[in-house]
Amino acid sequence: MNISKFVAPEIIWGLGSLNQVGESAVRLGVTKIFVVTDEGVLNSGWVEKALSFLKMAKIEYRVWNSLTTNPKCMEVARAATEYMASGCDGLLAVGGGSPIDVAKAIAILATNGGEIADYEGINKVTKPLPPMVIVPTTAGSGSEVSQFTIIVNKKRKAKMVIVSKSLVPDIAIVDPTVLQTKNPRLTAGTGIDALSHAIESYVSLAATELTDVQALNAIRIIANNLRESVACSTNLDAKAAMSMASLQAGLAFSNAILGVTHAMTHQIDALLDLFHGETNGILLPHVMEYNSIACADKYARVAEAFGVNVTGLSKWEAADRAIAEVRRLVKDIGLPESLSAVGLSDDIIPRLSENALMDTCLITNPRDCGQEDIAGIYRRAL
Amino acid sequence: MNISKFVAPEIIWGLGSLNQVGESAVRLGVTKIFVVTDEGVLNSGWVEKALSFLKMAKIEYRVWNSLTTNPKCMEVARAATEYMASGCDGLLAVGGGSPIDVAKAIAILATNGGEIADYEGINKVTKPLPPMVIVPTTAGSGSEVSQFTIIVNKKRKAKMVIVSKSLVPDIAIVDPTVLQTKNPRLTAGTGIDALSHAIESYVSLAATELTDVQALNAIRIIANNLRESVACSTNLDAKAAMSMASLQAGLAFSNAILGVTHAMTHQIDALLDLFHGETNGILLPHVMEYNSIACADKYARVAEAFGVNVTGLSKWEAADRAIAEVRRLVKDIGLPESLSAVGLSDDIIPRLSENALMDTCLITNPRDCGQEDIAGIYRRAL
Repeated sequence: MNISKFVAPEIIWGLGSLNQVGESAVRLGVTKIFVVTDEGVLNSGWVEKALSFLKMAKIEYRVWNSLTTNPKCMEVARAATEYMASGCDGLLAVGGGSPIDVAKAIAILATNGGEIADYEGINKVTKPLPPMVIVPTTAGSGSEVSQFTIIVNKKRKAKMVIVSKSLVPDIAIVDPTVLQTKNPRLTAGTGIDALSHAIESYVSLAATELTDVQALNAIRIIANNLRESVACSTNLDAKAAMSMASLQAGLAFSNAILGVTHAMTHQIDALLDLFHGETNGILLPHVMEYNSIACADKYARVAEAFGVNVTGLSKWEAADRAIAEVRRLVKDIGLPESLSAVGLSDDIIPRLSENALMDTCLITNPRDCGQEDIAGIYRRAL
Repeated sequence: MNISKFVAPEIIWGLGSLNQVGESAVRLGVTKIFVVTDEGVLNSGWVEKALSFLKMAKIEYRVWNSLTTNPKCMEVARAATEYMASGCDGLLAVGGGSPIDVAKAIAILATNGGEIADYEGINKVTKPLPPMVIVPTTAGSGSEVSQFTIIVNKKRKAKMVIVSKSLVPDIAIVDPTVLQTKNPRLTAGTGIDALSHAIESYVSLAATELTDVQALNAIRIIANNLRESVACSTNLDAKAAMSMASLQAGLAFSNAILGVTHAMTHQIDALLDLFHGETNGILLPHVMEYNSIACADKYARVAEAFGVNVTGLSKWEAADRAIAEVRRLVKDIGLPESLSAVGLSDDIIPRLSENALMDTCLITNPRDCGQEDIAGIYRRAL
């Protein structure tokens, strides 16, 4: 048995909890807050609502939204410069994984200096970060509770994984109400991202009982609610369930790390700037087929979490049923099922495979995985 | 749906993790640490070992151990005076629930002043506390992760429950190795305390999915490992399992609070200074019988966690099976099964019941419970 560590932010969860934003900033001693968000979230009206709660708590603010999906190094550098010139003493992200990850990256540069590429890898952040409050507007990234931030290095065309305990936000405010303005595609893709966090962390070499219970429950919730959440934007029960699933999957992967699916998805994100959740959904069942000989026992539990009666099945058969359930879910919610469907072709696979080999998420994958193994999975997913 | 909050410390868990004590203190900026422990733990040698790791990290220390079981107000007051005179800038508890709760109480007085009785109830602690590192030496109290401290008010002969987010320690170091020096009675009583935390928080009115998964897994682990842990002091697998169960039950009750069992046990602790875990074990099945009409669904899940096949049973029958399993476990590990067996008599029940009515833990019990109901439970447990 190795020594394992577990960290989590303070979590405020529930319908209407967005109204805790101002009080949370006050509790953290913030007087002027740098609000990181994006165009889509601004248009949805949730930022305006968050600002009204900041005003009530007499917190000044500065809104910044000049970022893209799969955020890039230079966006972070520009944002950090603006943060430091703004007189702000804390950060609020209102958005999906991209704004949250950018807020974390700004926090690093604000107190640690240098360039964001200096912090790639594990535990490179040494100085304490400014206070961070996070309001996720998708149920998927889990970044609201995680010790990860993931930023694209445009020079290397690679996604840099930065892991540090200090990246766990101070307060995560998870209000399922805000999920109602997402379109079905975003709901589906972010939901499958959460599923891939849960399944990858559940079979991770760094998994513990603390993370397993969160991961397995997240899988159960997603199996029972993601279709319904995609089907109906006002189904608040399904939205609430999915926001809890994303949170639990986030706690699991933050502490148990991920696996080959994410190591492979990150490279596609960086080179082709596709939708992270969709790529995960395409790759996940193929990676599960590859990993099955290492962790069929756990995949059998995944099948049960999907509602499969595994009585009388061998663990290999049960694991196959889990993989079939993941495939069916991806199909049911209308996500693409092959890499060629999202524009990938065979010629880019060697480069993707080479890059994936350097991804931090590979370390905790339950089955050893070399460059040729990775290339094989990419090919089977074409 | 109400808004719910979840907090947890940084958790370091695993065999040998005691060696993280020095580094943890350094990370929190501590230069001289006030070590709170008791005679029994001192004799076991674990404090000496912890001090050796502090020395390696060049942390100065002062050891304090003048406390009793169910620690009292005046012990806390004396300890706080010594802390403030010692030049220490942080606290380390090495011990069971009593030293941990005293360390937390010292932390309150060190920065908030006044008397510990001033802070009884919820969220009365306003100023930040000095850094706290906690090493639990029993698998039961869960205080290493909780936002609770419980101190006896000798004047009122009542146990004061103090709940505040700032009482969550900074770092909990949970090393199952240290459980090997406990005698079977202490192992049994503290293990049943953990079980009562798990069951009470699981059916609490403040339970959420985040706490439910921890609570239910703790019950499963205890059902499968407490007997073995009591049976053999060197069974490290059972000790490791029980330390994880105590941790998970602690995370559950810290965030979902408890119920009638603890409200009733606290009064016996305060008036008669008995062994908290044993009293819990006596009362728990009686409280479950009382609560069953409010939460039979959840008790049916408890039965399953104990390994009972509930197929074909009504939820009431399944709940009965859960209660029978708890009774059998208490008996199997040699704990007393009635209040009369630990010296209680009928005449003290009115006073106990009156005091229990004011206990904070009553608020989250799933079934309404008045003074006569409480007296009835005490009587049935005689």
